[in-house]
Amino acid sequence: MSAAGPSQGANTPRLGAARRRSRKRGGPFVFPVRVYYEDTDAAGVVYYANYLKYMERARTEWLAALGFPLAAFERSHGIAFVVHRVEIDFLQPARLNDTLDVTVEAAERGLSRLAAMQSCRRDGVALTNAQVTLACVDTVRWRPTRIPKPLRDVLDPTE
Amino acid sequence: MSAAGPSQGANTPRLGAARRRSRKRGGPFVFPVRVYYEDTDAAGVVYYANYLKYMERARTEWLAALGFPLAAFERSHGIAFVVHRVEIDFLQPARLNDTLDVTVEAAERGLSRLAAMQSCRRDGVALTNAQVTLACVDTVRWRPTRIPKPLRDVLDPTE
Amino acid sequence: MSAAGPSQGANTPRLGAARRRSRKRGGPFVFPVRVYYEDTDAAGVVYYANYLKYMERARTEWLAALGFPLAAFERSHGIAFVVHRVEIDFLQPARLNDTLDVTVEAAERGLSRLAAMQSCRRDGVALTNAQVTLACVDTVRWRPTRIPKPLRDVLDPTE
Amino acid sequence: MSAAGPSQGANTPRLGAARRRSRKRGGPFVFPVRVYYEDTDAAGVVYYANYLKYMERARTEWLAALGFPLAAFERSHGIAFVVHRVEIDFLQPARLNDTLDVTVEAAERGLSRLAAMQSCRRDGVALTNAQVTLACVDTVRWRPTRIPKPLRDVLDPTE
Repeated sequence: MSAAGPSQGANTPRLGAARRRSRKRGGPFVFPVRVYYEDTDAAGVVYYANYLKYMERARTEWLAALGFPLAAFERSHGIAFVVHRVEIDFLQPARLNDTLDVTVEAAERGLSRLAAMQSCRRDGVALTNAQVTLACVDTVRWRPTRIPKPLRDVLDPTE
Repeated sequence: MSAAGPSQGANTPRLGAARRRSRKRGGPFVFPVRVYYEDTDAAGVVYYANYLKYMERARTEWLAALGFPLAAFERSHGIAFVVHRVEIDFLQPARLNDTLDVTVEAAERGLSRLAAMQSCRRDGVALTNAQVTLACVDTVRWRPTRIPKPLRDVLDPTE
Repeated sequence: MSAAGPSQGANTPRLGAARRRSRKRGGPFVFPVRVYYEDTDAAGVVYYANYLKYMERARTEWLAALGFPLAAFERSHGIAFVVHRVEIDFLQPARLNDTLDVTVEAAERGLSRLAAMQSCRRDGVALTNAQVTLACVDTVRWRPTRIPKPLRDVLDPTE
Repeated sequence: MSAAGPSQGANTPRLGAARRRSRKRGGPFVFPVRVYYEDTDAAGVVYYANYLKYMERARTEWLAALGFPLAAFERSHGIAFVVHRVEIDFLQPARLNDTLDVTVEAAERGLSRLAAMQSCRRDGVALTNAQVTLACVDTVRWRPTRIPKPLRDVLDPTE
């Protein structure tokens, strides 16, 4: 998904309300999470791997908001989205009871891959930034396969 | 917290709206959770230990709704609530993308202990039922100590 | 799994050889685990749900030591062992870098159920004690089914 | 830790046996892990965030093998190693009951930072590759601070 220019809104009839709203705001999809004890470690902060859980929750909710409930969509198409690569910077720690905004923004789309820019923010300040690359695989051979067209269309309506 | 008789509402001025609402409904506090990939295992269902995470989230939100944000409350009193005993029955599995209602209901209160009845429900059907006993400990010696009076009062206003 | 001593068998009809062998050693099956950051929480101790992970690891290693590698065994029989009930007491907290002995001892066996006594110990002192009841289910209908005979025989060779 | 030239062994008197052994083998430190149900998800494979747990376990065991038991070392120096950045490629999925070799190799060391190359391998084949950058922070202000000299010396004996 390339940059969202001002005129692009007119070309995105399939985008759901959540997505459109976030475009109008000029920002990414946002999903709030609360930090519970389960997320923290003995250093008193969120354990580093757990930010990837938050980010996966946000991607799931983002796809659902786009009209693609992940589990049903994967099952009906015989596919799964698997994470292919993550680059993540941990800038500041989140702590118990923090409320974080987890963001998702599609950054690039190939036939079978999708890159998303994500972050976890507290009071508008990014605590982590990540680029997550997903691959669409078929669940029989576990090999890359095309992202189903309805989703491709939503992720990149100018295609 | 002993049985909630019909006249008890009048004696519970400190109860917050969430709690009062749930009393009026005659039911427990309810907190919704969504099942994500992180919660499931290779058997295709929620991993058994993860129900305890859901239940701890619900207890945290329940205490927050009662006016006791857990992290700040524990820190300011030098205490922590630690789980002392769990009895949990796994009746039916939850699956990816399910939305569960996690319930909390105070069942019994001692000076330093609190028992809560909890469940995870899907469409009104209990998938798990648990009794969770918490102990209030001081965070210096990690020994049982009295539940701070403001919280005791809310949990058992007839004391 | 080999023979049981004649006199002991009479007193412990359902106990398997592993159990007997470990009795000869004077104890249950023991599996060591190290506490890492991932296991702890902001209270500086092992998060309560994570003891159930340790216990499941120990059950897996116990079955493997009995000659039943769990994943392959379940797949080949179309079954899964699911946890049906847990009663667990948290007596003392484990901390970062502790080495724990996680124990397993078969306690009772039915046609489709198995109860195990488990504990997590540090320097011989039990930090948690649990009774875990497992049900054998078929993975198609997710309904209770008989524990496959080879495993029943090991768990209860006198049957 | 920069490139390990052939003569470097002579300059590393503080290296423990484990490290020396792995140098003699020409390879990194290796820590084995078993994949349990807790590690997998409903796609039947190891959940992506859990590889970071494996990698953190291996780093802990690597430091312990070098003579630096992490928890005690951090406490005694008032420091913590926090993950600053991760780049991780997921090449092939690990599955239930797999035994993985998790590797660690110091890649680069600054005054307060340390980069490690890590992988999870099955039968010699890398399933994931990662570069993990750690920062040494003081636990009071949670700001970067120098890696304590004894550890620096071991990580980079030519300094």
